[in-house]
Amino acid sequence: MEITGQHFIGNKVSGDGIETFSAVNPVNNKTLPGVFFNATTQEIDTATTKSVAAYQILKTKNKEDIAAFLEQIAEEIMALGDTLITRCNEETALPEARLIGERGRTVGQLRLFAALVREGSWVDATIDTAEPNRAPVPKSDLRQMLRPIGPIAVFGASNFPLAFSVAGGDTASALAASCPVIVKGHPAHPGTTELVARAILKAVKTCNMPEGTFSLVQGNTTKVGETLVKHLAIKAVAFTGSFKGGKALFDLANSRKEPIPVFAEMGSTNPVFILPKALKERGDSIAAGLVSSINLGVGQFCTNPGMVIIPKDKGIASFCDQVADKISQSPSATMLTPGIANAYKSTVDILRNSVGAEILSSGKNDDAPNNVASTVFKVSGTELLNNNQLEQEVFGPCSVLVEAETKEQVLEIARNLEGHLTATVHGTPEDFETFAELFQILEQKAGRLIINGFPTGVEVCHAMTHGGPYPSTTAPQTTSVGTKAIKRFVRPVCYQGFPDSLLPESLKDSNTHNIWRLVNGTFTKEHINR
Amino acid sequence: MEITGQHFIGNKVSGDGIETFSAVNPVNNKTLPGVFFNATTQEIDTATTKSVAAYQILKTKNKEDIAAFLEQIAEEIMALGDTLITRCNEETALPEARLIGERGRTVGQLRLFAALVREGSWVDATIDTAEPNRAPVPKSDLRQMLRPIGPIAVFGASNFPLAFSVAGGDTASALAASCPVIVKGHPAHPGTTELVARAILKAVKTCNMPEGTFSLVQGNTTKVGETLVKHLAIKAVAFTGSFKGGKALFDLANSRKEPIPVFAEMGSTNPVFILPKALKERGDSIAAGLVSSINLGVGQFCTNPGMVIIPKDKGIASFCDQVADKISQSPSATMLTPGIANAYKSTVDILRNSVGAEILSSGKNDDAPNNVASTVFKVSGTELLNNNQLEQEVFGPCSVLVEAETKEQVLEIARNLEGHLTATVHGTPEDFETFAELFQILEQKAGRLIINGFPTGVEVCHAMTHGGPYPSTTAPQTTSVGTKAIKRFVRPVCYQGFPDSLLPESLKDSNTHNIWRLVNGTFTKEHINR
Repeated sequence: MEITGQHFIGNKVSGDGIETFSAVNPVNNKTLPGVFFNATTQEIDTATTKSVAAYQILKTKNKEDIAAFLEQIAEEIMALGDTLITRCNEETALPEARLIGERGRTVGQLRLFAALVREGSWVDATIDTAEPNRAPVPKSDLRQMLRPIGPIAVFGASNFPLAFSVAGGDTASALAASCPVIVKGHPAHPGTTELVARAILKAVKTCNMPEGTFSLVQGNTTKVGETLVKHLAIKAVAFTGSFKGGKALFDLANSRKEPIPVFAEMGSTNPVFILPKALKERGDSIAAGLVSSINLGVGQFCTNPGMVIIPKDKGIASFCDQVADKISQSPSATMLTPGIANAYKSTVDILRNSVGAEILSSGKNDDAPNNVASTVFKVSGTELLNNNQLEQEVFGPCSVLVEAETKEQVLEIARNLEGHLTATVHGTPEDFETFAELFQILEQKAGRLIINGFPTGVEVCHAMTHGGPYPSTTAPQTTSVGTKAIKRFVRPVCYQGFPDSLLPESLKDSNTHNIWRLVNGTFTKEHINR
Repeated sequence: MEITGQHFIGNKVSGDGIETFSAVNPVNNKTLPGVFFNATTQEIDTATTKSVAAYQILKTKNKEDIAAFLEQIAEEIMALGDTLITRCNEETALPEARLIGERGRTVGQLRLFAALVREGSWVDATIDTAEPNRAPVPKSDLRQMLRPIGPIAVFGASNFPLAFSVAGGDTASALAASCPVIVKGHPAHPGTTELVARAILKAVKTCNMPEGTFSLVQGNTTKVGETLVKHLAIKAVAFTGSFKGGKALFDLANSRKEPIPVFAEMGSTNPVFILPKALKERGDSIAAGLVSSINLGVGQFCTNPGMVIIPKDKGIASFCDQVADKISQSPSATMLTPGIANAYKSTVDILRNSVGAEILSSGKNDDAPNNVASTVFKVSGTELLNNNQLEQEVFGPCSVLVEAETKEQVLEIARNLEGHLTATVHGTPEDFETFAELFQILEQKAGRLIINGFPTGVEVCHAMTHGGPYPSTTAPQTTSVGTKAIKRFVRPVCYQGFPDSLLPESLKDSNTHNIWRLVNGTFTKEHINR
């Protein structure tokens, strides 16, 4: 399949710009086939116009149509076959096995949202029936459900070229909510982006979805994304990436005449606490698991464990030795882009020259262009408390082991944490009693708390929270992974005094959708007798 | 009961400032008893420190304790008896009957949240059980529920001195979510504020809630509120009032090092559409209902119908005459404050001098200090489309009748609307068929759609949406009235791999709370077998 480099403005291909860019294979810094256009302001404007028109139709589609459309996208992505995996591997240096797994996650995610939409109870249908004889004033019939908010701008992430990109969780949940999507592709994998966009557009046609349901714009400048976010037709923004990028979009969206929500997942350091009895009982396996988690995907995960807090203990030296040893044996690996590799190297250098941060060990290195070595540092708890730069995320296979002086210092470190996506505790039942307060603190600091596991590996399910207090996200009350991600793209609309015929299907007396509804305060699938 | 003018910083009375202010009776512009202090930065700091400490305890309270506390607040408010009603009447000029009704709404609201908390399913408990043998990777046990976000700053509203003020919907829903509250009282009714704050503090003591669960700061400068919102311990802001005030708080909150959500309900013009057959069949009763709705509470409602769109029809002249006639007979009435009365008068004057706006009629007037006359204007649909100032809210008993040229112009007016709290349509089944598209448009413009009713009168129930697209609120995805208002003050926390003993009660295997939970995608009250 040829990569054309063009945008998809609704169902039309377009390439009106003059600025172009290409993809680079990070393994050898060689340019890959395909010349990509930066989208013009006019192209973005046309895409949003089509998106608004599509929204009027999408929001009236029945749930089966939306579910079938999501499933068809999954089909079309699978139908891309090896072409997708090969191009994606060339653009990201991520191994094929990983990409095949990520593709499975991506299509599984689309199918999970299809199932959610087909079941239908996610709309939170809520009905309070009329009381015409109530004194002093009669009570009207009031019915409420979640309705789509409009066109959504989705920014593809660098580190998950499939699962958090063109047809990733943001797009899947926005389409599931009946919102049209305009994707701004990540410039590091534009070919992958184009292939997946074509798959979505095939599904748009097969399923008779309106033109403008999906558009793709590409670009390697911030201007393309900014133009999109500033466009008044856009009603929300979904983003996964750096703090700098997410915060810039957040500020931009709030400066609009009509501010809009920005659901930016900006990563975090994901503190891991290893408590004394667990360290004693199974320090070896924790060290092995920790290093695997640090190295997974060359550390290019939002949930990479970047900070490990261990109370002072006689076992700590042996634990640090084991981690250091395993890190030193870690092979060099290629990062996603030259920019990311250079940023990793320079941040590691800053830590290396930081007062109080001792380098414990570095992994293997080689001269391949964008290869980096895993690195592990050690600092004292007191140093960490004095230097909040140590809490900043190093995007890559790097972690800082923190030796806390006392239990009280462990708790103080926890209290001083900023918002994180995750917080992990390794301990035994006895540890959990001793450190009971730790859980009360961490609950205020993270979206997901993990016991005796590792933060990498974000399950796509109903109970997932992938999000957390600022600065890990700009929207701590939401999740960007799991079925509840759909709630980002809807708002509750209340219908007062509506005749049955004018109500949305989910709110009609008959409950033909057979969904769970809150009727006069009670969950039920019963129909309503007026 | 003596009004002391002091703050309640947690359970301690305080009045450290030097700036003071008093309440004024708007009926005669006379100063009422009581000298109130503007809170100092130090007092606000102490209040937030106590609030943070209280949060640590509140979030571990069981649901019965929280429910009993809310009910006790209701009891204590009722126990204030006539003292509250009398003072409130003196401060607001709102009639005693209205205030007794509003007190009923306020205590009813507290009791509704108590019932919600006692039932317990509102926490959205969601459980995905482990699959240890899943290939290629095992699935962990994941459980998620809504948890309180921390101290909330609540701003009292001028127009509902009880139901949207110290113990109003914002405070009730925040406390129900186990979030401590710091109220910034509205300077127009500081005595009412103090009385209700005392009732809450009595309940804090009776129910053994931690000190800092509730604090009250007062002030007649923007500085007091700004200092509170800028304080990093505050995790969200709830506000009901003007666009100017709400937007300023929104911008301030977004400029913090840690931005926080601002749930500002800023009012709107609440368009009412009257369709031809309904106009013909029951223009008289619609005119009567409309004028009652315009005049209700001297028009001082966020949901006051400020704009009425009617397609050109031979019945329109008679309808306008009836509205004009009823408005001309409307008695003069006292507004809440001199500032509000003056703003009303000058905005009406601007409209009066506005090109294209014809004054249809004015109500009676007199020389009482803050009395105003109801006013109704008429403009053409074309004029409205050319002059978006006509869509701006006039806070008070004023409405603009819009004669639209054609059905298409009605739809165009609808498409051009900004976000509103409500949108209303009067019609017959035949009208609804002819104007089917109107509902599709209005659904995108308002939080609540009303058929054959009037927007004033916001039911406190499960299905209510009191909120809408910007600029009616800064948080269109939420409601500030009804049980779902509680969702503003929580975020989803996920617990991965937790032993049962460490899980919050709502997520434990046994479901002792007997709440509805989403278990592996199915709603159930069953317990979990691990």
